[in-house]
Amino acid sequence: MKKGYEDIRTDLALEVRESFEDDDVEIKGVVLEEDYLKEKDLKITTVIIKDEQGAKAMRKPIGTYITIEAQKLSEKDDEYHSSISEEIGKYIKKLIGEDREKGVMVVGLGNREVTPDALGPLVVDNLFITRHLIKEYGEDFQKRNKLTCVSALAPGVMAQTGMEAVEIIRGIMKETKPSVVLAIDALASRSVHRVNTTIQISDTGISPGAGIGNNRMALNEDSLGVKVVALGVPTVVDAMTIIRDSMENMLNSQGFSQNEVQSFFSEVTNQESFHNMFVTPKNIDESMKCISFTLSEAINSCFCGRS
Amino acid sequence: MKKGYEDIRTDLALEVRESFEDDDVEIKGVVLEEDYLKEKDLKITTVIIKDEQGAKAMRKPIGTYITIEAQKLSEKDDEYHSSISEEIGKYIKKLIGEDREKGVMVVGLGNREVTPDALGPLVVDNLFITRHLIKEYGEDFQKRNKLTCVSALAPGVMAQTGMEAVEIIRGIMKETKPSVVLAIDALASRSVHRVNTTIQISDTGISPGAGIGNNRMALNEDSLGVKVVALGVPTVVDAMTIIRDSMENMLNSQGFSQNEVQSFFSEVTNQESFHNMFVTPKNIDESMKCISFTLSEAINSCFCGRS
Amino acid sequence: MKKGYEDIRTDLALEVRESFEDDDVEIKGVVLEEDYLKEKDLKITTVIIKDEQGAKAMRKPIGTYITIEAQKLSEKDDEYHSSISEEIGKYIKKLIGEDREKGVMVVGLGNREVTPDALGPLVVDNLFITRHLIKEYGEDFQKRNKLTCVSALAPGVMAQTGMEAVEIIRGIMKETKPSVVLAIDALASRSVHRVNTTIQISDTGISPGAGIGNNRMALNEDSLGVKVVALGVPTVVDAMTIIRDSMENMLNSQGFSQNEVQSFFSEVTNQESFHNMFVTPKNIDESMKCISFTLSEAINSCFCGRS
Amino acid sequence: MKKGYEDIRTDLALEVRESFEDDDVEIKGVVLEEDYLKEKDLKITTVIIKDEQGAKAMRKPIGTYITIEAQKLSEKDDEYHSSISEEIGKYIKKLIGEDREKGVMVVGLGNREVTPDALGPLVVDNLFITRHLIKEYGEDFQKRNKLTCVSALAPGVMAQTGMEAVEIIRGIMKETKPSVVLAIDALASRSVHRVNTTIQISDTGISPGAGIGNNRMALNEDSLGVKVVALGVPTVVDAMTIIRDSMENMLNSQGFSQNEVQSFFSEVTNQESFHNMFVTPKNIDESMKCISFTLSEAINSCFCGRS
Repeated sequence: MKKGYEDIRTDLALEVRESFEDDDVEIKGVVLEEDYLKEKDLKITTVIIKDEQGAKAMRKPIGTYITIEAQKLSEKDDEYHSSISEEIGKYIKKLIGEDREKGVMVVGLGNREVTPDALGPLVVDNLFITRHLIKEYGEDFQKRNKLTCVSALAPGVMAQTGMEAVEIIRGIMKETKPSVVLAIDALASRSVHRVNTTIQISDTGISPGAGIGNNRMALNEDSLGVKVVALGVPTVVDAMTIIRDSMENMLNSQGFSQNEVQSFFSEVTNQESFHNMFVTPKNIDESMKCISFTLSEAINSCFCGRS
Repeated sequence: MKKGYEDIRTDLALEVRESFEDDDVEIKGVVLEEDYLKEKDLKITTVIIKDEQGAKAMRKPIGTYITIEAQKLSEKDDEYHSSISEEIGKYIKKLIGEDREKGVMVVGLGNREVTPDALGPLVVDNLFITRHLIKEYGEDFQKRNKLTCVSALAPGVMAQTGMEAVEIIRGIMKETKPSVVLAIDALASRSVHRVNTTIQISDTGISPGAGIGNNRMALNEDSLGVKVVALGVPTVVDAMTIIRDSMENMLNSQGFSQNEVQSFFSEVTNQESFHNMFVTPKNIDESMKCISFTLSEAINSCFCGRS
Repeated sequence: MKKGYEDIRTDLALEVRESFEDDDVEIKGVVLEEDYLKEKDLKITTVIIKDEQGAKAMRKPIGTYITIEAQKLSEKDDEYHSSISEEIGKYIKKLIGEDREKGVMVVGLGNREVTPDALGPLVVDNLFITRHLIKEYGEDFQKRNKLTCVSALAPGVMAQTGMEAVEIIRGIMKETKPSVVLAIDALASRSVHRVNTTIQISDTGISPGAGIGNNRMALNEDSLGVKVVALGVPTVVDAMTIIRDSMENMLNSQGFSQNEVQSFFSEVTNQESFHNMFVTPKNIDESMKCISFTLSEAINSCFCGRS
Repeated sequence: MKKGYEDIRTDLALEVRESFEDDDVEIKGVVLEEDYLKEKDLKITTVIIKDEQGAKAMRKPIGTYITIEAQKLSEKDDEYHSSISEEIGKYIKKLIGEDREKGVMVVGLGNREVTPDALGPLVVDNLFITRHLIKEYGEDFQKRNKLTCVSALAPGVMAQTGMEAVEIIRGIMKETKPSVVLAIDALASRSVHRVNTTIQISDTGISPGAGIGNNRMALNEDSLGVKVVALGVPTVVDAMTIIRDSMENMLNSQGFSQNEVQSFFSEVTNQESFHNMFVTPKNIDESMKCISFTLSEAINSCFCGRS
């Protein structure tokens, strides 16, 4: 039985999986694998949603969701970061597979002007862009330097452009015809402990989610026509979610039944004022700088030179 | 009797006053005045803390706190904004009084890199700075153009500079000797309804507060040697505060006694994870742009030309 | 006879026209009109290139080029700016004509990270964007508020995206189908006196020009399929151009013949080091803030409500 | 005999030295040493001005000026950059000497809003700031981690603050009492070839120079009371200087005498329009990103742990 409620919002497949009361219960159509890289202090969880039944239970599309938990992700430590950016690069490569021959388009979703939503644009700022160089210097140049053809855009949010990100990206793709899209976005997690310590990589694209922005239409193979690998880090918790979870924890600890807890919530759920608000740490600027740099390096390592 | 708890955090004197159970109760040493400007849709509340008894009850320094509630403060509407910026200017002038003869130093507190904490730096960006012009062109130029001598700085936060804002400002003042300081800061309110709709102007400076930044030492007449007028807008709510208030509302509505409510809270209060987190609206970037522009205009109207 | 040389670079039709030795000479296929608005201190020059002969002589496409010279364009003076933004709005409207029924896409060309090239992105930042609102609230909402459907994008430069601006814009237009494009770009003038004091509005789009960026492919009706109105302000002078013009002035004043002058230039022309360099004023940041705000207001006044 | 003219503007001691017609001529009071690090492709030139006679000839204060020429300074190449940042760190350490015991204050001069002038602020953005940590965690923490006490500020320019940088810094130093100041600034060189390829480190502070900003008063031991080490990179050439040098080269190559050249220049020198203009490369944004990161790393390596 599910512990969560409809309006508990998380972009992490891992957290949806955890919301099932007993972790040992097997959910039909969902495979869970865990790994721990001791020397790098990284916990890797892979959730594979195999069929429609799994998709329905998880309320997420069929596909692979890799979660990397790195407690020091937002701390300044150059060595640690180059170690985890290498690891992240491996998983990006794995999910992209052989689809990058005709080029990768990297999309930095989110709003550059709102600190915890700026992850995508910041990552794009530090990428090594090659498409125009390859166009100018030719295929020999590309092969000699072992370059993947990389283009990139931070399309902005609807309040800035009047357009859905999917309209912008789909349009551009008609001109530039990349063979895969890598979409980077700030996510919402359910737990403050996951904020700025977790990376999710999936091959299912971006779904209309819990995140900060209003990227309301999906960016996925259906809408864009090519595989969309999504790379995200939770940088916020939805305000309503944090309040409900806190209350639930308190009420449970006081011995209230699940039904009583539920009935209490009608009150809060009606408080419109918490919608469109998010919770984020005070030092979010430092975390964004650190994490975006690590993700840029991870992507650069995938596409530039080093085999 | 006070309804609030020790860790309920707000920077608004108005909200401290409201936290006393019954608004009609008179708090010794505290005067409350309310005014409503119908044509501008502005509610003006003045809280005057008159003596130590009032200061103790309010846990705020003796002085005057003017609160302007403007529901459309963060909406794009040029005419409305020039109307309220004029009103704000009046109150700034009133609290500054005659102290500006030798010059005003405007201090934009907060972290430019964290959107809801960028209010101070953004306001400073749009000020009309005159000190260097007056130094270059002389007193005649100043008189002819009816200029107040204005200097300004956004000192940044401690993680960026390694220094307290008060160290930076006090030091500079030894060189430039302004006769009054106007400090602008993003505040924390207790209620989401006050976020981005309320302006507080006080003559008591900035106290170590609930805000986003770590401006831990006070900026006031004691620490700086001249009057410090503070101009602030709540842009966040402290995460712990919003959770506790929500719970309390829920529990009260379910008929729990004040004591029961209190005992429930030991649970939450111990959750370290909510400390150093804040709640803010998703469109905080647009609000900051709007509000900072209105405040800059208000300040410019005080000090430039128009008598 | 032409005074200019092949590598004298200017984006202003007005300056091309001036480069013909004698202003009274009539150039076949080119019409010149001048107007002076005394009360606003604005000089308006209209250059109409009527046919292929004119286009060849002017090395610019057939069409209308309106130049507004405003000496105080980059000075802080709110009243003056609202007066000229109104004037600019009129000319934009005139050149756009009735083509805006299905919506305008505003394109802010240039590099946000290079101050004198940031004009386009800065203008876009302050536009009132309506497309998403109209999609959400419907045609009644649009009519009631007399809104033109406005979308906007600052596509960045090729080093950032790996893509030509025209690829990005043409792609997006396949999705959003605007009926006219308004492209804003920082321009290069030949004379330092025109920098930050001149506005050019044309109905011929953006040609691969002298500007700062590498917007190497044209944005015009040929490449985009709809009329492209271009709005630009010279913010730089090409370094090579300024050097050659200075030398020429000096040599002419010393009595050297045109042939001698020409032969001197082989020397300089071969100095590769001046290519890809530009000349700009030290206070370019203040000018960009002022001018971009004025242009945003001009565009907003065209498309929002008032009319 | 000097080749240069009074208004030839350069901040590089190296270029002043070169302006003396014959490099083999010994200038009294000035010592010149050259070194070449082959494996790192770095040319190191040390100019030591030993006495008043040297200072007068060079029109620069007595002291040591180390110039590092690195052709690839503004190219993306992580390995090269960590190699040269180490080298730069060594020279900074050498000039600072033992003076850092009570702490270093790093000052990022220049205007964040003008790309080639943003070097100082950008370097400060990526420093590892320790003063507040040491204050909080104590001397043991400092010793264990081998930290120098580092504080930092980007004071902005006079148009933004109304104050001279020296007023701001001197004031703050009265509060924080650092034992040495490290000032970072964008410089003006005489030659486009030196732009973004040269680093100058000196122990004489910052003099009112040719740079972009209006840092008109000196930051040196006289004005601040402690040693001021200056770290700079030329990012611009003064517009007038580039024009005069180009003309001179041309005229010399045409066989004109030095006197004739001089007399030609009265013409240009009177053209006020070139004053307050600078020449900079179109891709200045990429160079600033690269170079500022390398300088930050160099400074961090001096003061944090490794030693």
